[in-house]
Formats: sequence, C-alpha cells, structure tokens
Amino acid sequence: MKTDLTRYLPILAWGRTYNRSALTNDLVAALIVTIMLIPQSLAYALLAGLPAEAGLYASIVPIMLYAVFGTSRALAVGPVAVVSLMTAAALSNIVEQGTMGYAVAALSLAGLSGVILLAMGLFRLGFIANFLSHPVIAGFITASGIIIAASQLKHIFGIDAHGHNLLELVISLVTHLGEINWITAIIGILATGFLFWVRKGLKPLLRNLGLSSGLTGVLVKTGPVAVVVLTTLAVWLFGLADKGVKIVGEVPQSLPPLTLPSFSPDLLGQLLLPAFLISIIGFVESISVAQTLAAKKRQRIDPDQELIGLGAANIGASLTGGFPVTGGFSRSVVNFDAGAETPAAGAFTAIGLAIAALALTPLIYFLPKATLAATIIVAVLSLVDFSILKRSWAYSKADFFAVLATILLTLALGVEIGVSAGVGLSILLHLYKSSKPHIAEVGQVPNTEHFRNILRHDVLTDPSIVTLRVDESLYFANARYLEDKIHNRVAGDKDIRHVILQCSAINEIDLSALESLEAINERLQEMDVCLHLSEVKGPVMDRLQREHFLSELSGQVFLTQFEAVKELESK
Amino acid sequence: MKTDLTRYLPILAWGRTYNRSALTNDLVAALIVTIMLIPQSLAYALLAGLPAEAGLYASIVPIMLYAVFGTSRALAVGPVAVVSLMTAAALSNIVEQGTMGYAVAALSLAGLSGVILLAMGLFRLGFIANFLSHPVIAGFITASGIIIAASQLKHIFGIDAHGHNLLELVISLVTHLGEINWITAIIGILATGFLFWVRKGLKPLLRNLGLSSGLTGVLVKTGPVAVVVLTTLAVWLFGLADKGVKIVGEVPQSLPPLTLPSFSPDLLGQLLLPAFLISIIGFVESISVAQTLAAKKRQRIDPDQELIGLGAANIGASLTGGFPVTGGFSRSVVNFDAGAETPAAGAFTAIGLAIAALALTPLIYFLPKATLAATIIVAVLSLVDFSILKRSWAYSKADFFAVLATILLTLALGVEIGVSAGVGLSILLHLYKSSKPHIAEVGQVPNTEHFRNILRHDVLTDPSIVTLRVDESLYFANARYLEDKIHNRVAGDKDIRHVILQCSAINEIDLSALESLEAINERLQEMDVCLHLSEVKGPVMDRLQREHFLSELSGQVFLTQFEAVKELESK
Repeated sequence: MKTDLTRYLPILAWGRTYNRSALTNDLVAALIVTIMLIPQSLAYALLAGLPAEAGLYASIVPIMLYAVFGTSRALAVGPVAVVSLMTAAALSNIVEQGTMGYAVAALSLAGLSGVILLAMGLFRLGFIANFLSHPVIAGFITASGIIIAASQLKHIFGIDAHGHNLLELVISLVTHLGEINWITAIIGILATGFLFWVRKGLKPLLRNLGLSSGLTGVLVKTGPVAVVVLTTLAVWLFGLADKGVKIVGEVPQSLPPLTLPSFSPDLLGQLLLPAFLISIIGFVESISVAQTLAAKKRQRIDPDQELIGLGAANIGASLTGGFPVTGGFSRSVVNFDAGAETPAAGAFTAIGLAIAALALTPLIYFLPKATLAATIIVAVLSLVDFSILKRSWAYSKADFFAVLATILLTLALGVEIGVSAGVGLSILLHLYKSSKPHIAEVGQVPNTEHFRNILRHDVLTDPSIVTLRVDESLYFANARYLEDKIHNRVAGDKDIRHVILQCSAINEIDLSALESLEAINERLQEMDVCLHLSEVKGPVMDRLQREHFLSELSGQVFLTQFEAVKELESK
Repeated sequence: MKTDLTRYLPILAWGRTYNRSALTNDLVAALIVTIMLIPQSLAYALLAGLPAEAGLYASIVPIMLYAVFGTSRALAVGPVAVVSLMTAAALSNIVEQGTMGYAVAALSLAGLSGVILLAMGLFRLGFIANFLSHPVIAGFITASGIIIAASQLKHIFGIDAHGHNLLELVISLVTHLGEINWITAIIGILATGFLFWVRKGLKPLLRNLGLSSGLTGVLVKTGPVAVVVLTTLAVWLFGLADKGVKIVGEVPQSLPPLTLPSFSPDLLGQLLLPAFLISIIGFVESISVAQTLAAKKRQRIDPDQELIGLGAANIGASLTGGFPVTGGFSRSVVNFDAGAETPAAGAFTAIGLAIAALALTPLIYFLPKATLAATIIVAVLSLVDFSILKRSWAYSKADFFAVLATILLTLALGVEIGVSAGVGLSILLHLYKSSKPHIAEVGQVPNTEHFRNILRHDVLTDPSIVTLRVDESLYFANARYLEDKIHNRVAGDKDIRHVILQCSAINEIDLSALESLEAINERLQEMDVCLHLSEVKGPVMDRLQREHFLSELSGQVFLTQFEAVKELESK
C-alpha cells in the first residue's frame, strides 16, 4: 500500500529526505526560472491567441500539481511554443479569437487534454506516444517553428495578418504590408536582432571572460528580460503607444482565478482530436527532456506516472484560467543548470510567478507586443532544423519520406493534418517494409558450420536442398509473400527435394503465418518436396507445439542449420 | 519485349502449346462446370439483389477475359457468395433494390472494382491484400455465411424481410412470420434438406459404390441441378405459382447485353470504399484457390498478374450487364477435378453459359426462388466454421481478439464495418505487440559459448556487466521502450559498468531507434556506464556505418557475445 501511494505520489519519496541544502538550491533555481518565465509565459499566451495574463496563470497551478505527481526532479511545466501553436490552431477553427468563448474553449481544451493524459497514465497507455517516430517529431517541430515565426511577423511589423499554415500567413502578410507601423517595426527588428546576438554573440563572449558554461547558459536565457525592460521603458518614455505601437495594456492584478471549462458536448466533440494530438505531442516533448535530465543524475522516470503528472497539470490549468501546458525544454534545462534538486523548485517558481501576477503586472502595461513576438521568434527558430532531411535521406528512405511529408503537410495544411499524416505514413511504411522481408538463400561457408547468403559469399550448396533465411518475424502482412517466394523458387526447379527454413531471425509466428506454413508444407508435398525448419527460437517453438503443424510437417525440425544440411545431404 | 507481352498476356504462353488432348479435357470440364454454374449464377444474382439473368451475364464475358489475362489454369471466375452479399450491402445503402438505378449501380461497382484491381496489378500493389490476416478472413467469411443464410430464409418461407446484419434480418423475419406461404416453405425446406443430404449422405454412398473421389465430387456438385429441375417441374405441373410460390419468371433470351455503368461522381464516391473492400476480399479468395490448385501441378501464379486478370474480368462484367465477380472456390475445384488443363476450359464454359442464356431461359420460368435460396443456404453454411475461435484462442490471443471482433461486428453492423474493423484491429495489435518486444537479460551457459535468459536457465553473470537481448527489430514504436528498459535496469544498480546489447534478433534499426541508441549511449555515459553491441547483422551494420553513432559509442562492437564478455570481464 505504501509503495503504491509512493508510485502515484512521488512527492512522498523525495519529500521525506528534503533538507536545508536542497531547499537553498531549489530557491536559487526558482528565482532564475521565474525571471526567465515571465516574458516567456506572456509571449506564449499571445501565441495561443489568449490575453497575456493567461500565460502566467498557466504556469502557476500546473507547475505545483506537477511537483506533487511528476517523477522528474527538474522538469518545468508551463506553456510551450508548439503546444501554444496547436492550441491556437484548434480553437480558431471553432470560436473567434479574442472572444470570451475562445478563452473558455481554451480551458476545455486543457481539461480534455488533462483527462486524456490522466487516463493514458492510469491505463498505462503511454506506449501510444511511441508511434510518433523521432524523424516525424523532428520534422513536425521544424515546420511548427517556421509557422510560429511567420505568425509573429505581424506583431513585429505592427500589421494584421491571419492564417494557420505558411501559405495563408505569407499571403496575409504580403497583402497587409502597406499598413506597416514603422516605429513598431524598428522596435521589433531591434529586439529580434538583440536576442539573436545574445544567443550567438554573447555566449562566446561570456565564455571567453571565463564564466562557467552553466552560468553563461543561465545569463543568456535572461536576455529576454532585458529586452522586455528596455522596450517597455522606451514605449513609456517616448509615448510610443499613442503612435500606433501595440502594447500589452491592462493586465489584472490577481492570483489565478478559479475557472470552469465548458462541458458542451458539441465543443468537446470538436476538441477531442486536437486535445489528443496536443496530449501526445506535449507528452513526447516532456518525456524526452525529463529522461535526458534524469540520466545526468542516474534518476528514474516512470513514463506512466509522467502522464499522470502532466494530466494533473493540465486539469489544473483548465480550472485556473490557463491553457494546455507541458514540460518545456528550455525552461527545464535552465532549472536543471541553475541547480534545482527536487520538484520543490517548481513550487517555488510558481510562488514567484504568483507574486508577479499579483504585483508586477502594472509594470508591463507599456510592454510592446513586438517585443514578445521577438522573444518567440528567436526561441522557435532554434527549433528549426532541416538537417533531419539530409540525415534520414542518407540513413533510411522510409524515414525520409515520413519527415518530408510531415514538414510539407504541416506547412501547407497546418499542424493537425501534418502530424497525423506523419504518424500514419510512418506506420504504413513500417508495415510495407515488414510485408516484404529480406529473404536470403543461404549456403555453407566452406570449412565452417556457418551459413551465409549465396549472393554475397562463396558458399557450398546442394542442388536438391534450398535453404531460405527469413530476416523478419512472420505475421499476416508477410505470410503470403513467403508463400509466393517459396512457391516461385521451387516451381521451376525440378531438382529440389528439400526446402529448409532457417528461423534464427524469426521472433514470432502468428496464426496467419502458421496457416501459410501449413499451406507451404502441403503445396511442397504436392511437388514431392519436404519442408524442414532449423534454429527455431524457444518461444516460437513453444507456440508451434500447441498446434498440429509440427506433426504434419513433411520434414524435420533441426536444432542447427549445419545439422540439417549434414543429415539431408547424406540421404 | 516478347517476355513482357507474355507476362501481361499469359494466354500467349499456354496458347502456343495447345493440343487436341488438352482440348478434349477442357471441353469435358467446361460441360460439367456449365451445368453446375447455371443454378449457382442465378442464385447469386438474387443474393446480390439483381434479376436472375445478371448472374448468367456475369459469368460469360468475365470468364473469357480472365482466360486471356489470368495466370491460373483452373480458376473459374464469376459471381461468388461473399462478394454478392457485399454487393447487395453496398448498393442497398444507396439505391432501392429492384430499380433500374440499382442494376446500373451494380455495373458501376463492378467497373470501379475492376479499375482498382487493374491499378493494383499494374502498380504491383497486391501486397495490400496481405493486411487481411487469415484469422480475420476466416471470421469474416463465417459471419458472412451466417448473414447470407439468414437473408435467404425469407425466400424459403415466402415472406418479406430485409436487413444487412443479423439483428435486422432476425427482427424482420420474426415480425413477418405470420405471412408465411406454406407451399413455398415446403418446397424450400425439402430442397434444403435434399441438398444437405446430397452433401452429407450421397457422397459416402457413391464412394461406397466404388466411384472415384473426383467423380463423386463432381456428381455431388450437380445436386443443385436436380433440385432445380424437380422443383421447376413441380411448380409447373401443379400450378403452384398461382398459389403464391414466387418464381423466377420471365428471363430475356439474350446474349449478355452491352451496358454502360454510371459515371456519376456522387455515385462513384459512395461506391469507392465498398469497391475497394470487394476488390481486396475477392482477390484474397481468388488467389488462395489459384495457388492451392497451381501447387498440385507445380505451376506458378503471379499475384500481380492475377490482379490484372480479375480487374479485366470485372471491367468486362460492368460492360455486359453483370456485377462484381471473382475466382470462386467450389467452381474452380470442380473445374480442376473435372480435368481442366488450360484457361480455355473457362472460355468453353462461357460459351456453354451463353447458349444457356440464349436458349434455356424459358425453361426456368417456373423455377421457384425458394429453390435458389436453398442452394445458396447449403453452399454458404459450409463456409461457416467457428473452429477459428478455438484455434486462435489456443495459439495467440491477439489473433483471437481480431477474429472475435470481426465476427461480432460483421454480424452486428454488416460486412463493410466488420472487415474494416478486423483489419484495423489486427494491425493495431501487431503494432502493440512489436512496441513492447521481448527483452531478455542473458548470461553465459557454463562451459559453453552460449548465452541464455537468466530467468530460464542457470547461467553465469558478472555484476558489472548486463547483457540484454532484444527479440525484435528496433523501430520507432519500440525505441522509447528500449530506452526506458535500459534506463530503469541501470539507474538503480550502481555496480553496473557495461551494458551489452546482443543484436542477433534485430533485423532493422530505423532512424528513431538509432536516435534512441544515441540517447541511451549518452545517458549511460552520464552514469559512467559503457554501451556495447554484439552480433550485429551485416545489413544492420552497413546502415549503422553510414552514421556517426559507432564512432560516438562509448563501448565496442563485438562479433560474438562470448568475445564481448571475455574481453569486458578481463578489464
């Protein structure tokens, strides 16, 4: 019972040994992360199409719930770029942005996503996320980064533009280009340029000055705070808001409000698929970060419990004015580098953000939206990485086509279709590959007991014996292929008396494949050819023995291929 | 060029060596098949919801086109039970049975199915059919047989009843039971009883009289002709048609008419999915029969060319007043047993049926529909076989659930949903199984170079070395599972210094799995543990060498597991 409770409430495990040294480390990390999170949270709320304060709210209660239920000690949960984009894409199809209904729908989306994650965790369905292949994720994130960056250009130039795929966005931007606000554009371009310099130029500079790589990383991550402060001051001092520079404006001074998502079945029905996709993508992003960080300290991550932690965080977001959240890469790395030891660091961050929401919001009244757009653009462009195309082209064409389709469809048709198509295509390509397995005809390497492909090696063969090695488990998708291969190999060659299937690479034989083997056995018998098996694995043999195939087999089952040939040649 | 033509026109291959002995054999077979096909064709047309003559038309031109393009020498193409049921199910959702539009839609369905089959053949997409697992087909055919038999009960009892799944049919039958026509019922029950006796009682009788098993089979198959003759005479002599016995009635005396299917995009759109399912099911049924018969004479079947043959046959059916056709089991076996040597036998059968369509149709004016229903019921009940449930339960639970779902959903919701769900479920179960592969921790069997599962065998292990054998190819669906397994095995055990992956059962490593291996390697390094590989297969190694993983590997790649342990223990 106690271990059970600890499984579902990891806080009981680390809370028991919490001490002063861990407390100090956690407090320092929390302070740094809080400073970094303030602009990021506001920015991602705007990206999701919500008022800026929603970003703060989405970072407070979710982070505390994750601290109770999550297994990662360093993961920082809150709004992230890709999930915010997916939120905007899902909601804009259903309700108009800027309305009350939009914010309520965002609550429902977070709640639904939370329930889905929780259910997946309780029923241990985390494996579903595995069907997102790494290349598909890489392609999806690259394409999403481009769309996000493009969607922020309107804030940089102070114009109106809309769209949820690249083509729509570009057309909309071009047609509105005449309405450009030059002051906004100058702020936006300077802010973007500065942030890029912080990433590319400041980092080497600080390192050369002898700072540790960890501290450098943390300082670089606070760059956005500097831009926020400077541009806000500029707007306030020069009264730029009156000259058409769009600002964040009034943000309520409040702790996260208690909210209730809409339970309208219509709305929930429309949000179900997007919520599922957001859950899966968010989970995959989160678990990779968590595992990478846990490995550095030889800690364990339980994927099913992570689902529960993320589920609780999203349900929390839906009840406190937020929107879908997950474990973010950059914030978690900062948290880890700043020395966070336990999830308590996350709880302290939440307290910091709560203070910000209560006390600091008047200070961001004059914060230009262009600055937030600049922080988003610089953050997401680091996600854009086309090298996956080159890499997959060299390594595996199937992976390449799955990535290419994901990138093109995400750019052309939007995030939901893009990622679904990528998953579908990679499953189809996998099934296709395993439906036409590599089947090698093998012969004996002279003076050894080894058997190798007759096309690659000089080997000994006997005209009356054909040995085929199937390099794949046998199941319904390739069962008939094997039938065809064997039939066609034997039909034309009247010398053949024995066919041996070398089963060393066969990890499973399902019922379809068993029936195919029966058919092969029967048809070979009609041609006066015996079917033999060699090197059948234990678990496969166990299963075959439950059926009468072995007793009907015209030939024998040999322990090794060498034995098989020795015995059959002597006949 | 010549070989190319022979590939697409197999008739050029066998036509060149055609001689008098083959001609005689083909003529005898054709005569027997013709006699058997007349009642069967009429019956399946009624099952498909079409006028009786459509069955004859569907057997004439298609059989001739298959003779030109098909590769099987014994396959007899025409209407078959399951495809006729699927035709009725597809069309009844769209147009009302008995209308002109219904017959035209049947032409479109056959044409669409023909085009799909042809395209699959030309683009060599026959492998798609492999995703119908054997158990799913068995379950589907069993459930279809039950639905077909139930759908014919209305003719046996002379009542009105409709429905495309078992529940609908049973309810409809029960509510109309009061309208039963007793004379029809007597004819129907007697005919059914007689046909069952022919199958079960006459066969042993004839065998005991010393007839060969082939001839017995042929005679038994002509049983339906006897029933047709007897019941038609009875209706005519006693004027039973006036007493409410439904008869076939006037059938035009005509060769197959030239017809044009409807090309309405609306209609074609609605028919696309059913046409695809009919094509796949028809192809699977046909190719199994063709391969079984070809094996008996050591002949080759080319699945892609079979698709072309069946495609041509269906296009022929759509242009000559027919409906979807495929290679039938019982007619092909009769054809083979009667001695057919070449596809010419099919052409002669077509001529026989053409003569019947021209000259014999007035003779079936008084043929009661109950008789045709009886022939259908007896034919399809031989398809019903629940043993697949017991068999799959014993052999593989995944197969069992796929079959069970197929049977239940086909009975409850109809053929299209049933077979689609079966295919979907078997793919999902396969993916699920391969996403959680068997991973054994292995140790050395004392005094050998063999390594076996530590849970099953008494083996030697070293506390600083963990060897894991993954019994599955590594791909995206199981890549993260492997990460978790290794991480959790190592995280808690501080003695471990080396992890060896024994790769003897890994037939492929895709890019996702490669990236997982990279992550594993990196995370193990963080824990001061080295990752090694052993027994990597040639093609897998080839591919790994295209990437930099091997140079980043913290450990080594060993040719054999024994070498790996020998070397690492000595360190």
